[in-house]
Amino acid sequence: MIVARTVEEIRAAVQQLRTNRPNSTVGFVPTMGYLHEGHASLMRKSAEQNEISVLSIFVNPIQFGPNEDLERYPRNESGDLQLAGQCGIDIVFLPSVEVMYPQATKTKIRVAEVTEGLCGASRPGHFDGVTTVVAKLFNMVKPDRAYFGLKDAQQVAVIQQMVNDLNMDVQIIPCPIVRETDGLALSSRNVYLSDEERRQALVLSESLQMAHSLIREQSTITAAELNDVIVKHIQAMPIADIDYVEIVQYPSMERFAASVKLGEQKSDILIALAVRFGNTRLIDNLYLPYQL
Amino acid sequence: MIVARTVEEIRAAVQQLRTNRPNSTVGFVPTMGYLHEGHASLMRKSAEQNEISVLSIFVNPIQFGPNEDLERYPRNESGDLQLAGQCGIDIVFLPSVEVMYPQATKTKIRVAEVTEGLCGASRPGHFDGVTTVVAKLFNMVKPDRAYFGLKDAQQVAVIQQMVNDLNMDVQIIPCPIVRETDGLALSSRNVYLSDEERRQALVLSESLQMAHSLIREQSTITAAELNDVIVKHIQAMPIADIDYVEIVQYPSMERFAASVKLGEQKSDILIALAVRFGNTRLIDNLYLPYQL
Repeated sequence: MIVARTVEEIRAAVQQLRTNRPNSTVGFVPTMGYLHEGHASLMRKSAEQNEISVLSIFVNPIQFGPNEDLERYPRNESGDLQLAGQCGIDIVFLPSVEVMYPQATKTKIRVAEVTEGLCGASRPGHFDGVTTVVAKLFNMVKPDRAYFGLKDAQQVAVIQQMVNDLNMDVQIIPCPIVRETDGLALSSRNVYLSDEERRQALVLSESLQMAHSLIREQSTITAAELNDVIVKHIQAMPIADIDYVEIVQYPSMERFAASVKLGEQKSDILIALAVRFGNTRLIDNLYLPYQL
Repeated sequence: MIVARTVEEIRAAVQQLRTNRPNSTVGFVPTMGYLHEGHASLMRKSAEQNEISVLSIFVNPIQFGPNEDLERYPRNESGDLQLAGQCGIDIVFLPSVEVMYPQATKTKIRVAEVTEGLCGASRPGHFDGVTTVVAKLFNMVKPDRAYFGLKDAQQVAVIQQMVNDLNMDVQIIPCPIVRETDGLALSSRNVYLSDEERRQALVLSESLQMAHSLIREQSTITAAELNDVIVKHIQAMPIADIDYVEIVQYPSMERFAASVKLGEQKSDILIALAVRFGNTRLIDNLYLPYQL
């Protein structure tokens, strides 16, 4: 496994493997590190679909707000490298902030509309930071395919919109959420949780499961009714502090009107949650593709 | 010469020539068409430096403001194709608006600071439209080098900033202004001028020549003094309507303080003008690289 730390090194490493393995494709898994089984599923998928797989680990300062967890975001370089090796990664790109931003960037990529609600509303500027760094990484790695987890479903929608609008020559591969056996969606931020917070955080996946059952069983349930049930269920946990509960069309991220009957919708539905447990903000979602 | 009109066609054409000519480089000249000798100098430079040269002709709606000349912008496809052939272009990309924007783009690339003054101030949103379409074209053509005329000096600075910030793997080659024998800078918009407007428009190049002489001869002249001389000189033309006269550092486009002595500056100087003659807004500039 090659470890690259500068722009020149990552370009040269990809170029070298492309030359050594003619007609190969490059899969790319951009991450912020502290890798877990969710990331592992992306890396394995890349290794399965491409002759060359690149992982990047970079905690991107410009996607964090001033009061967010940039400083304490967990890191574990040696553990990450070990897991990457086990998952078939050929090149790991580990740039410093100075490598990624030798000067503060004057250029930002902004996606409108898709970024307006949900995490975009709670975290102003967050998605501009995400799209900008992803474009930079794409321009360095030049992948054929890039792998993103649907845990950040809005992020996937935003990146796909950017790729379409800017004619980036890369295929975005969304991959399903990976969960603990008790239902908690994997997240690097789960490490912040106390035992009690983690126990109460199970309400996220539980309320999504419940929502799924309700839509299946009551096709006339409205967006407002379902929203209300989910909010009440989450609020039953004393420390759960709701940031948002949103029922939206995917991938436009447009909110359904309150009176809309979800079981009768002819579009993909995303139910997305962001809830604080103590100092830790967790997100989870249920993606229901429309089936004819 | 290959003519491509869709994204698939331009990608395939470039790929085909790259395969046919191994280890070749691709030069790219993005234009809005109605080509003149200024464009020809860019195309010839590209043909000289690269085995493959691509020209694009696209009047980009999103870089025009609501009251600008999008509708009447001059076009001459057959003349353009002829000149392109004479200048060594291998592929001409002629996309329609529908090809470039199948839906209205939700994604924009915005460069801060460099875009704030001069044409960025006079034409709000103009440079967002330029950077966005240039990024799209770069992602389709994937050139090694791209050629831009210094007539739009701020545009060159903005694009170079975008390329640096987003790690785009393309070398930007700025090329000098081409002028008529009487000094008028070549522009597709010169066709709008009446005889009288064209005669009075010579004040642009004349005032820049005069400014050049003044800086050479009076090293203690201040930015404010030089600005004043230029403004007075232009205003002597009865129909000249000044949009801006700016003396700035290049490529940051930061305005020099009024009291700064230009002959003593240790930075590149750009003197940039935008002046209306009747309904036609013309720009011109003098670029003075700092010499040790």
